[in-house]
Amino acid sequence: MKVIRTVADMGEEALAIIRSSKSYGFVPTMGALHEGHVSLIRRAANENDIVAVSIFVNPTQFNENDDFEKYPRNIEADLALAEEAGADIVFNPEPEDMFSDKRDTLVMPNKLTNHLCGLSRGKGHFIGVCTVVSKLFNIIRPEKAYFGQKDAQQALIIQRMVHDLNFPVKIEICPIIREDDGLALSSRNVRIPENMRHEALSLSRALTHGKALIEDGATNAPEVINAMCEKVIEAGDVEIDYIDIVSTETLEDVAEIDDLVLLAGAIKVGGVRLIDNMLAAPAGK
Amino acid sequence: MKVIRTVADMGEEALAIIRSSKSYGFVPTMGALHEGHVSLIRRAANENDIVAVSIFVNPTQFNENDDFEKYPRNIEADLALAEEAGADIVFNPEPEDMFSDKRDTLVMPNKLTNHLCGLSRGKGHFIGVCTVVSKLFNIIRPEKAYFGQKDAQQALIIQRMVHDLNFPVKIEICPIIREDDGLALSSRNVRIPENMRHEALSLSRALTHGKALIEDGATNAPEVINAMCEKVIEAGDVEIDYIDIVSTETLEDVAEIDDLVLLAGAIKVGGVRLIDNMLAAPAGK
Repeated sequence: MKVIRTVADMGEEALAIIRSSKSYGFVPTMGALHEGHVSLIRRAANENDIVAVSIFVNPTQFNENDDFEKYPRNIEADLALAEEAGADIVFNPEPEDMFSDKRDTLVMPNKLTNHLCGLSRGKGHFIGVCTVVSKLFNIIRPEKAYFGQKDAQQALIIQRMVHDLNFPVKIEICPIIREDDGLALSSRNVRIPENMRHEALSLSRALTHGKALIEDGATNAPEVINAMCEKVIEAGDVEIDYIDIVSTETLEDVAEIDDLVLLAGAIKVGGVRLIDNMLAAPAGK
Repeated sequence: MKVIRTVADMGEEALAIIRSSKSYGFVPTMGALHEGHVSLIRRAANENDIVAVSIFVNPTQFNENDDFEKYPRNIEADLALAEEAGADIVFNPEPEDMFSDKRDTLVMPNKLTNHLCGLSRGKGHFIGVCTVVSKLFNIIRPEKAYFGQKDAQQALIIQRMVHDLNFPVKIEICPIIREDDGLALSSRNVRIPENMRHEALSLSRALTHGKALIEDGATNAPEVINAMCEKVIEAGDVEIDYIDIVSTETLEDVAEIDDLVLLAGAIKVGGVRLIDNMLAAPAGK
């Protein structure tokens, strides 16, 4: 496995791969790799001759109150996991090679940001995501890129961006990986206080509950949202950021559930922000 | 010469060209080709094995009061000129293949838009330019792209965008082509009323005058700007949009001229907006 540390070297490597006509997949990450990332890299390795993984904690997608500094970093463990999962290249640039004060062109997603994490983390979060993913696509130049359904809004916004700006990249969305008790894997999970596991699990329990209600015939979205919020609240010391039921295409709030919907939530447990989501459809849909 | 009419076909062609390892240049245009465009295509043909020219009047870079509908179109003449100048491919997509109501991701240049045409045409103009050029780069995937110094601010903003977003494209800026009497070539020139040639020429005369003043030792920018404005005003029925002296790097106003500067102006003559610019430096710089 090659480890590439500069934008210039990665650009040369990318051109050589395209010219080789080998199939070429890409998994963008912020490091702190876990089984969720590993599942993306494995799938990319199954589907492509060459797999590039980027490890870059993007400062522009964190806001001031956010957890950029606290974001876990462990490059040695990441390299071992990436190689084991089938990566051929890890692109791990220095921050100053990716961003500088003089850079100010931004890629701005639009309507899809006015919901869920776009509201709670601020519009700048997804501008930061779209800008860095555009940069990575232009540097790495893959045919396919793999994103996790865990960040459902991000995946949808990236798909829209690729469509709108005609990036020559196919986006593949891969399922959420969970621990046995249901907790969605996240790099942030290592920061959950040990004695707050019950609280952390309240989100996946709430989403599972909401999904069951919908499959059992509930159609009133505010009522299902209330039932989900109750599940979280009864867990005790949990701060709800949002719990919502939205359209899978527009992310707009759904009032009456008569088709596939996205149940999505964000909570804070012991100062750690956790997100999760599930798809649900009425019986027969 | 191939004429390609769909985004999908152009994408396939682009990948084949990259894989052929041939050198590959691109000249984006809005059609209504004149000797200025021809000079870009000729230079691209001299420097590359394959030259693609796009002809697409981008609706998103015109504002409501702007001249999108009046923008001249003549595809048959354009194809003949492009072929004669050495183009191998003309990409001429339908508007609905490039844009639709559902597309809303934008590429947003930042500080460089707060000057010159960014003020007079509105910030949306350069968002429209950057978004469509990003799309064209992603569809056509050239190694080099050729822009005219005539649109000096556009060229600078595109260079910044390519740098900031790491597009794998080298930007080449080519000199302004002028008629014998000094008028900078523009697709809009065909719309200048015949009896207003004198007025139209006032801008290049003013810039030439300002450049001479600077080369002769003038260092006070507001005084030079005034002298240039007088040259335009004395031509008679001309509306000045702006006449300015700015930094060639930041486009910020210069007060004291002690290095290379950009003299730039925009005027309206008979309802037609004309722009022009010249570089000037004090003697010895």
